[in-house]
Amino acid sequence: MDNETLQSALPEYFAPWVQALGLKVESFDADSVTARLPQHPQLSRVGGMLCGQAMMAAADTAMVLALINHFGEFRPCTTVQMNTSFLKPLAGQGGLVQARVLRAGKSLAFGEIDIRGANDGKSVCRASVTYALL
Amino acid sequence: MDNETLQSALPEYFAPWVQALGLKVESFDADSVTARLPQHPQLSRVGGMLCGQAMMAAADTAMVLALINHFGEFRPCTTVQMNTSFLKPLAGQGGLVQARVLRAGKSLAFGEIDIRGANDGKSVCRASVTYALL
Amino acid sequence: MDNETLQSALPEYFAPWVQALGLKVESFDADSVTARLPQHPQLSRVGGMLCGQAMMAAADTAMVLALINHFGEFRPCTTVQMNTSFLKPLAGQGGLVQARVLRAGKSLAFGEIDIRGANDGKSVCRASVTYALL
Amino acid sequence: MDNETLQSALPEYFAPWVQALGLKVESFDADSVTARLPQHPQLSRVGGMLCGQAMMAAADTAMVLALINHFGEFRPCTTVQMNTSFLKPLAGQGGLVQARVLRAGKSLAFGEIDIRGANDGKSVCRASVTYALL
Repeated sequence: MDNETLQSALPEYFAPWVQALGLKVESFDADSVTARLPQHPQLSRVGGMLCGQAMMAAADTAMVLALINHFGEFRPCTTVQMNTSFLKPLAGQGGLVQARVLRAGKSLAFGEIDIRGANDGKSVCRASVTYALL
Repeated sequence: MDNETLQSALPEYFAPWVQALGLKVESFDADSVTARLPQHPQLSRVGGMLCGQAMMAAADTAMVLALINHFGEFRPCTTVQMNTSFLKPLAGQGGLVQARVLRAGKSLAFGEIDIRGANDGKSVCRASVTYALL
Repeated sequence: MDNETLQSALPEYFAPWVQALGLKVESFDADSVTARLPQHPQLSRVGGMLCGQAMMAAADTAMVLALINHFGEFRPCTTVQMNTSFLKPLAGQGGLVQARVLRAGKSLAFGEIDIRGANDGKSVCRASVTYALL
Repeated sequence: MDNETLQSALPEYFAPWVQALGLKVESFDADSVTARLPQHPQLSRVGGMLCGQAMMAAADTAMVLALINHFGEFRPCTTVQMNTSFLKPLAGQGGLVQARVLRAGKSLAFGEIDIRGANDGKSVCRASVTYALL
């Protein structure tokens, strides 16, 4: 796997509105992919805070990249369920979205996502997801 | 309350990227607000299916409108947690997003969201949320 | 289906510690089963409030009964994920646990549970679950 | 803090039915408490598998201990929401339940729980919780 292959999955498999998040693949390891969510006025609500909707969308999207990394290729899958906790606001900086595969079986995959401030490294959002592998 | 007041909350309180969902307030009652999520290629992934990221964003957004409706005005609040189940795909039609306030206390509010196909009325997505009232 | 068949599933398929909840099947319809969770000091914490752990266990258990009702027989299944919101305390009364099948496909089933006070009918707990059908 | 103080919170603050889980405090550090959930036929369903209801109850209970550890004393709190993913079955061994405080603010606390097999160390269950501090 390499960053370019993961990055190229974004225009191939995701809706244009999701691509508009501007996610950039930063790194990956055996279990996880980390993508950068840039700071952008389009994603901010009053006060310059990153909107929670963008955090959820980035988390779900990064997890699909982590599954591609895990399997070595894109496998058709669908999000079954996602739970997100918003620990604190993120303002004045972008985010680093790390998606990690916890377990991938024959028909289901489980993962967790952590979003941290790109500057201060503090965790602002945690999510857990279940995917059905088709 | 009236539809126009609820509709005008979208440009006032939400990020431009969330406004790009194109949500239109359709109706409201004592406990709930229903908004239409139009079918749009920007929100669709391969196969013409509405992307799950848009469902989550629409659900969270409609719930804020339901809280405005409940309180009779916008009250500062923040999403604490949201859980979403994706029951089946939505393709070839828009969605109707009904957000309902289950309970609003002094510091916390609970709600549930149901997204149905605008044409066939079948439920495709269910979400539950917790908000902190600031 | 009848109440006795559903009731008899409790000693057959559940751990003794779960049976100790004392759930009693009250009624069922096409999509749902309702069971009574009796008020009992064993399930109460300080102040006479029903403990949240018992609510979660009752919700998950009632949902398995709802799946038996849905399929007309017990089908091996496993809980994949469960999300529970605790709306308010329940004290001085038992609970009515209504579990409803939202959708049952080939490999996954989705359901929701509502727990209400047996005396005042007020909703105190809401849960959503995903099951894998084996 | 010491293990005995944490252990003594179980009979003091929890329902007898929850105490019947037999949780034993094993260790703690700045952010987390780990408790052992013994293997016991009372908690097992057919096939000797630990029932999911016991995993959820143990996770919620261990998290309260982690909050006591975090604050240095018991503070009244209530579970607002809990989400649990069941990654795989646990059979033939007890579990180690590690509850970790992610963030504790003025009115809300967030935590995550990991349950691993006591013998093989494999993660079988992950949960995230939100508590309201009263």
